[in-house]
Amino acid sequence: MDYPESTKVIVSEIGTVLTRVDNADVARFIRVITGAPNIFVIGVGRVMLMAQAFAKRLTHLGCSSYVVGETTVPPIGGGDVLIACSGSGETMTTVNIARLARQHGAVVAAVTARRESALVGLATVTVVLPCPTKLHLAGEAASIQPMGSLFEQSLLIFFDSIAMMIKQDRELTEEQLWKTHANLE
Amino acid sequence: MDYPESTKVIVSEIGTVLTRVDNADVARFIRVITGAPNIFVIGVGRVMLMAQAFAKRLTHLGCSSYVVGETTVPPIGGGDVLIACSGSGETMTTVNIARLARQHGAVVAAVTARRESALVGLATVTVVLPCPTKLHLAGEAASIQPMGSLFEQSLLIFFDSIAMMIKQDRELTEEQLWKTHANLE
Amino acid sequence: MDYPESTKVIVSEIGTVLTRVDNADVARFIRVITGAPNIFVIGVGRVMLMAQAFAKRLTHLGCSSYVVGETTVPPIGGGDVLIACSGSGETMTTVNIARLARQHGAVVAAVTARRESALVGLATVTVVLPCPTKLHLAGEAASIQPMGSLFEQSLLIFFDSIAMMIKQDRELTEEQLWKTHANLE
Amino acid sequence: MDYPESTKVIVSEIGTVLTRVDNADVARFIRVITGAPNIFVIGVGRVMLMAQAFAKRLTHLGCSSYVVGETTVPPIGGGDVLIACSGSGETMTTVNIARLARQHGAVVAAVTARRESALVGLATVTVVLPCPTKLHLAGEAASIQPMGSLFEQSLLIFFDSIAMMIKQDRELTEEQLWKTHANLE
Repeated sequence: MDYPESTKVIVSEIGTVLTRVDNADVARFIRVITGAPNIFVIGVGRVMLMAQAFAKRLTHLGCSSYVVGETTVPPIGGGDVLIACSGSGETMTTVNIARLARQHGAVVAAVTARRESALVGLATVTVVLPCPTKLHLAGEAASIQPMGSLFEQSLLIFFDSIAMMIKQDRELTEEQLWKTHANLE
Repeated sequence: MDYPESTKVIVSEIGTVLTRVDNADVARFIRVITGAPNIFVIGVGRVMLMAQAFAKRLTHLGCSSYVVGETTVPPIGGGDVLIACSGSGETMTTVNIARLARQHGAVVAAVTARRESALVGLATVTVVLPCPTKLHLAGEAASIQPMGSLFEQSLLIFFDSIAMMIKQDRELTEEQLWKTHANLE
Repeated sequence: MDYPESTKVIVSEIGTVLTRVDNADVARFIRVITGAPNIFVIGVGRVMLMAQAFAKRLTHLGCSSYVVGETTVPPIGGGDVLIACSGSGETMTTVNIARLARQHGAVVAAVTARRESALVGLATVTVVLPCPTKLHLAGEAASIQPMGSLFEQSLLIFFDSIAMMIKQDRELTEEQLWKTHANLE
Repeated sequence: MDYPESTKVIVSEIGTVLTRVDNADVARFIRVITGAPNIFVIGVGRVMLMAQAFAKRLTHLGCSSYVVGETTVPPIGGGDVLIACSGSGETMTTVNIARLARQHGAVVAAVTARRESALVGLATVTVVLPCPTKLHLAGEAASIQPMGSLFEQSLLIFFDSIAMMIKQDRELTEEQLWKTHANLE
C-alpha cells in the first residue's frame, strides 16, 4: 500500500464509523458534560492521549477539565463528570476509575466500541463508536488498521466535532480560545 | 452545526490536507526514521499528544522509540532521529530541542504546516501538512475548526498511515504487535 | 514553627525511619532488582514521583528501567521486577498493577509502611519503611508532618541510598553516569 | 559502604545543606508564593519530580498550583508565581520558561544551588540550597552522592518544610488536607 492509498483508507474508515454513531447519544453526551462543574478524563495508552487532547480543548472552551493522574488534580465530587474511554470497555484501570468516580457521586460518560461491556454498565450516558476491538468485530465496521487505531482516531475526531459544536453554541471566537491557552511552552 | 455535519466537515478537511502532502517527502521521512537506531519525538500540547501516539505505535512495530521528557529516556546520539512536530514551526521548546538534537549528532525530521519556519531550517527531512496555523493561512487549505485542530488531526492520521505502511512492509501480524504492547494497565 | 526548626524535625524523622529498616530486607531488595533484566516502578501521587526519581537514577546506573504508564514502556515479562510503592500497601492502582505483574511472571518488590497489607501479600521481597500512614500509626515512629510526607521522603532517601551502594559496587564513575543521562532538556 | 552508613551520610549531607539556607530568603519565598493567585512549577528531570511533589502538596494546602507542561494548565498571568528549580541555574528549558513567565508579567521564584546563574538573573526572589553541581563545588558543602542527588533531596525537604509551616500558619487540619486530595487513583 502506498501513502495516498493508506490515508484514503483511514479517512474513509473514520468517516464510516462516525456516521454510524447515534445522534441522540451524542446530544445526551454533550448535555451531560457541558452541565458539569468539572470534567475529568480517563483512558489508557493511545486512548488516554486522545482523551487528554479533548480535556485540553475543553479548557480552551471554558470548561474546567482535568486528566486523572496528573499532579494537581482536585478530588471528583457529586455532579462532576468522568469521561471514561475504552475501545473494549473492559480496560482494567479505566473500569476501576469509573467505579470509583461513581462511588464519589460523579456521573460516568462512557465512550467505547462495545455496548455490552463493563464500562457501559457503570455509565449514565454512553457513546458507541462502532469500531472493531481485540474483543469483537463490530459488525460491518471492519478495519484494516493495526490494533485499536480506528477507535483512537474516531475518538479524536468525535471529540473535536463536539468541541466545534460547543464553540459555536457558546459563540466563542478564536481570540477567546487563545486567551485560555497555556503560554509557558 | 449538528453532529453529522460537524464530523463530515472535519473528515473532509483532513482528507484534503493529506492528499496535498508531497509523496516524495513521505518516502524520505519513512526511510530516515526506519533506518535510525532510536527515534525520539517532541512537540508541545496537543501536538505532543499526537507525537506520543506515534511513538507508542512505533514501539509496537519494533522501533526503539522515546518521548522527550519522559523519565527514563536515554541520551540521543549520532544517527538517531528526532521527529519534531510543530504547526507553526516556531514553537520555542520544539525548536530548542531540535537544535540540541543536532548538536548531539542526531537527524531532525520535521512535521509542520509551514515550510518557511525555524524548525524546517534545522531539519534534514521535512513533511509539510498544509494546514492553516495562527501564523499563516496555508493557501487554499482553509479550516473552520478551532485553533490547531486540523494540524493535530492530520498529524495523527499521517503518522498512522505511515505506521500501517511500515507494518505491511515488515510483514508484521497483529499477534506480533500485541506481543510488544504494554501489559501493565 | 520557624524554618530551621521545621527542617530539623523532618531530617530527624527521616533518620529515625531509615535506621529502623531491616538490613536483611534491604540486601534482598538490592539482589532482586539488580538481577532483573528490566525494572518497572509503580506508585500513585507523590509516591509515584519518588519511584520515578529512582527509575531515572537506575537508568544512569546501567539498569534498564521503566515507569508504568509512560508512553513507550515494553511489556513486563518473566524475571522482570516491579517495584511497587505504597505507604498503606492498599492503594488500589498499585495493588492491581502488582497483581497483573505477577500474572505475567514478574517478581514484585514492595516498599511500604505496613507489613500487614494487600501489597505485601503479592510481593516476593518487601522493605518496610516504618512511617505512620492514614491507616496506622507505625508504633513509635510518629510524625508531625502532613499526610504521607514522611513515607515519601524516606522513600526517596532509601532509594538514593541504594543507588549510591549500586554505584560503588559497580565501580561507576560520575562520567559514566552522565553518559547515560538524557541530553534533550 | 553498607546500608546504615549510606543513609547516615545522606541524611547528614541534607541536614548540612538545609541549615546553611538563608532564613530571610525563605521568609521572602513563602511570602511571594502564598500571596500569588496561581503558582506554577518548572524543573527538569528529577528536579521536576520534586517540584511536582511540592505543587501537589500546595494543592492540599489550598493553593492553586500547576505543573508546567501538564495537559489542562491555564495561562500564567500578572501576579502569578513561577517556582523555577535548577541546581546549576542554567538548565535550558527552565531558564527559557522563566524568561517567558516574566514576559507574561509573572514573578519568578528561583530555587537553585548557584547564586551566580542565569536563572537567578531572572528571579524576583531566590533561595539557594548550597549543594555542589556539575558546574561548581559549593564551597564546603561537598557531597559523596552521585550527580545532583543532594540538590534534589534538599529541594524536597526544603519544600516540605515550607509546606509544614504553611499548614501550621493557616491552622489546617489533616482532615482538611485530605478533602482536597485526588480521589481517583
